[in-house]
Amino acid sequence: MMVAGVDMAPIKDFLFCDTPTEWIVAAGAPENLPVLLIDHANCEKKAASTALNLMYRYVEHPALLHKLSRLAREELRHFEQVLAIIEKRGMDYPQLSASRYAAGLRAQVAKNEPQRLVDTLLVGAIIEARSCERFAAVQPVVGAVNEELGRFYASLLRSESRHFMDYLTLARELAPSVDVEERLTPLLEAERKLIESEDEEFRFHSGVPK
Amino acid sequence: MMVAGVDMAPIKDFLFCDTPTEWIVAAGAPENLPVLLIDHANCEKKAASTALNLMYRYVEHPALLHKLSRLAREELRHFEQVLAIIEKRGMDYPQLSASRYAAGLRAQVAKNEPQRLVDTLLVGAIIEARSCERFAAVQPVVGAVNEELGRFYASLLRSESRHFMDYLTLARELAPSVDVEERLTPLLEAERKLIESEDEEFRFHSGVPK
Repeated sequence: MMVAGVDMAPIKDFLFCDTPTEWIVAAGAPENLPVLLIDHANCEKKAASTALNLMYRYVEHPALLHKLSRLAREELRHFEQVLAIIEKRGMDYPQLSASRYAAGLRAQVAKNEPQRLVDTLLVGAIIEARSCERFAAVQPVVGAVNEELGRFYASLLRSESRHFMDYLTLARELAPSVDVEERLTPLLEAERKLIESEDEEFRFHSGVPK
Repeated sequence: MMVAGVDMAPIKDFLFCDTPTEWIVAAGAPENLPVLLIDHANCEKKAASTALNLMYRYVEHPALLHKLSRLAREELRHFEQVLAIIEKRGMDYPQLSASRYAAGLRAQVAKNEPQRLVDTLLVGAIIEARSCERFAAVQPVVGAVNEELGRFYASLLRSESRHFMDYLTLARELAPSVDVEERLTPLLEAERKLIESEDEEFRFHSGVPK
């Protein structure tokens, strides 16, 4: 299944569930657009800091340093693009609490190495995969409200899907001793629960709107 | 005074002292080259995280968000360039403690707003100005050991001098109520002490080698 020139099959096969229809409907509601944009901008910043944190902790892996530095630069460029859209619409940029999603996934990360590194990279892969799946799902409904935004969301699919593969490849390369595939099952199961259960707050990665 | 096409006069006028000759001599010693490169790579990462931290805290200032996001991307590109040089020389990238310099400057930052924002931006301007001055000072001696590295250091002058102006301009634009110039004097005086006093460890921003 191709969306905006990106083959979504590897992403759909990887994740344990699709975004629920209720979330897609909420994302298309004009009153939720400001929160969607602000939270999206925050997610891009957060993605860049997560990559930077890994670059502090794992200096012994040049492949990780190079890949994550480029990834962080790309996330920052997306941040600047979302920010430009926020400004163009004359919207404010208030402080906004993060969704439970990333914290819920990070709570699954092991405390000890080498499991900690693998888990963190796999959580990175999962978040990028979900973001890609969600941009593809939301792009038609957001595009109906605002054409420019629809095009922008479509343009993000390609890099999100590349980032997903970057994280997954790093996990497989850097920790051959750990069974990556076995570890993925509980992490993806935890992610499915976060996506399919009810959530108080609407955010880019929130669950089913209450 | 032009170095590698960059007018150093505004930087020299801004800082309260030049880099001491003893530090320049130490930086040119081949046995210090690995520490210089690793610490330089760490400084680029740190510069990117500092910018990102400001982008989390001050979302209400679009000019700050745009400027610092671009600045962070540029620092990350420099990080990738230093990393490539480290790898090309077959050097390891061990964990390395930071110098006392940035922490010493940050200790001067006010705890309350709006002073905190202005102070943080001015400390950013000071660190960028010193980095620029130091690259200009060290470029001939490092270039004598390794021509490629000399050229790379010269190429960094232009962006460091631009980052210095970015931080200074933001401080002046964002907090007109605070007397920026008056605040600069104690900060620059603290910086002069860190640069001119003896330092146990050799680093990119260290004081006079003991």
